[in-house]
Amino acid sequence: MWPDRRVLDLLKIDLPIIQAPMAGSSDAELAIAVAEAGGLGSLPCALLSVDQIRAAYQVIRQRTARPVNLNFFCHAAPIVDAKRDEVWRNRLQRYYQELELDPSAKTPFPMRAPFDAQMCALVEELQPPIVSFHFGLPPQNLLARVKAAGATVLSSATTVEEARWLEHEGADAVIAQGFEAGGHRGMFLTSDLSTQIGTFALVPQIVDAVRVPVVASGGIADARGIVAALALGAAAVQIGTAYLRCPEAKTSALHRAALASANDDDTVLTNVFTGRPARGIANRFVREQGPISEAAPPFPLATNASLPLRLKAEGRNSIDFSPLWSGQAGRLARPVPARQLTTQLAEEALSRLRR
Amino acid sequence: MWPDRRVLDLLKIDLPIIQAPMAGSSDAELAIAVAEAGGLGSLPCALLSVDQIRAAYQVIRQRTARPVNLNFFCHAAPIVDAKRDEVWRNRLQRYYQELELDPSAKTPFPMRAPFDAQMCALVEELQPPIVSFHFGLPPQNLLARVKAAGATVLSSATTVEEARWLEHEGADAVIAQGFEAGGHRGMFLTSDLSTQIGTFALVPQIVDAVRVPVVASGGIADARGIVAALALGAAAVQIGTAYLRCPEAKTSALHRAALASANDDDTVLTNVFTGRPARGIANRFVREQGPISEAAPPFPLATNASLPLRLKAEGRNSIDFSPLWSGQAGRLARPVPARQLTTQLAEEALSRLRR
Repeated sequence: MWPDRRVLDLLKIDLPIIQAPMAGSSDAELAIAVAEAGGLGSLPCALLSVDQIRAAYQVIRQRTARPVNLNFFCHAAPIVDAKRDEVWRNRLQRYYQELELDPSAKTPFPMRAPFDAQMCALVEELQPPIVSFHFGLPPQNLLARVKAAGATVLSSATTVEEARWLEHEGADAVIAQGFEAGGHRGMFLTSDLSTQIGTFALVPQIVDAVRVPVVASGGIADARGIVAALALGAAAVQIGTAYLRCPEAKTSALHRAALASANDDDTVLTNVFTGRPARGIANRFVREQGPISEAAPPFPLATNASLPLRLKAEGRNSIDFSPLWSGQAGRLARPVPARQLTTQLAEEALSRLRR
Repeated sequence: MWPDRRVLDLLKIDLPIIQAPMAGSSDAELAIAVAEAGGLGSLPCALLSVDQIRAAYQVIRQRTARPVNLNFFCHAAPIVDAKRDEVWRNRLQRYYQELELDPSAKTPFPMRAPFDAQMCALVEELQPPIVSFHFGLPPQNLLARVKAAGATVLSSATTVEEARWLEHEGADAVIAQGFEAGGHRGMFLTSDLSTQIGTFALVPQIVDAVRVPVVASGGIADARGIVAALALGAAAVQIGTAYLRCPEAKTSALHRAALASANDDDTVLTNVFTGRPARGIANRFVREQGPISEAAPPFPLATNASLPLRLKAEGRNSIDFSPLWSGQAGRLARPVPARQLTTQLAEEALSRLRR
């Protein structure tokens, strides 16, 4: 069977496949489907209120008894800089005019909030078996409470140094997030994009540096990738983009169409949507303002200016202002139901391992 | 034995390991050692004259009967722009002062020359079994002569589009050069670094797109990487950085020391040394002028200004101005003789494949 059981035993799952939590693009449905297949389903909580998380977790618990992961962001809360915000809004002024939007209107929308005492109390109440974090780990007192509540803790590292730090601070497994990965880069000890590391080089170096099991992520979208990740020393994989095309994902029709036609070299790391670098398919907003802009307000404040543009443009069937998150191997993904995808990926990987 | 014999049969080698040609850092010695181990040794010809190539090839033929590869650059010859050159030199003026160098003095050194009719006549004379190119392929009439001389032709692709182009133009195998790779990126249909693709995502997508066998490169420095590359569908691997620490390589003592202590996140893609993006360990020159500078003259003209600084600084035992080429997995490399390294990599990979 699977050559390395460390993550399977740690998380009490049957298949070494973790569904990446994708805030805004997945909810309980995807988590349930992957969990029922034997992988680890993940509920992204970064855009949800405490009540929404509780409700989603109750849906999950009604429909599966298998382990599911609650994922939180734990970035430092940003300092609002009115001047910087104004410079950025002025730069985007012409888009507001083009889309007939009032630049001063406030669009109410869920702001990504870092994991806090309230969220921590919710974890203590719900007692999820696994909690994962992005952008490091929460403050030590909160992390201690999460662990005391019985949760196994995961977080992402983009460098060997970050992996060592996570292990030292108490992570039970480390997700090695390679340069290829879609969505937000989990980097937290460095902000230097020029030294970010490809999955192929990152995984074995993190495996050599930590004792906890390593989960490979970034560019893995089919069974070949699973077998390769295990060969590099990973004990499991985390897959994101390949799940975005599943019917259970909340991916918009526009985003799905972009994923279906994207080429290998159509994605970039960009900070223009949220203020933090994240990988997505390049579109007009990215090309004209980025991919990286020093002027973008800090995460997640840049969202204040980009989201109204996105919503209005999507209403006109345009993807010009949408964050089209995708890793570099999106083209390998197939639009099948998530349970079937998970089962097929595992069966094909096992069959390749037996050759 | 090896699960995929396509590259072994094509190149008539025993082990699916190609030693990357590293102009300036390797010569006949490294090629002979790797060839004798059963891999493909490569002689980088980009910095050599016709007479030097002939002499080196004669040394190779005296010492091994096994296949060896001659590697050439085939970039477009640059147009000298005196104004741009002056702007660049002015920017570097302070380094010349600091190192007590005459900025107007011409330093004679070998300039990287693209593959031309003279080189082509040499290939016809020497009849090497394998010729590889970097930065695409030479003009069709020259390529036809190379193939008519009996050479199997390889070249590197950094995107699926480049791989398809190489296959269409007549390459017998394609080297998929991932983002992790050290040295010059072989990109030739794009100059957009922001969309370059990690090895993990690039290899399977190129494998799916072409019929010729694919060689994986970038971030491969140990047996785990070889097994993973084969799992992704590659029929062989090309390894560069791991060979830089072998005694047979011409790597300088300063460069060796930098490789021995480099971390996973110490390399960047920089164009400040030669004018083309290449991956190396970041040092003072890279940090102060790059890593990417729009002001750097086109490849290889930027070398005119950087090489005198390098030579003078190295004379003072400083690596501040040296191109310290390295991939992102340099830390996995071990300083052992090249024949032993090649044999050990292959034996360990085979042993892992048998598990």
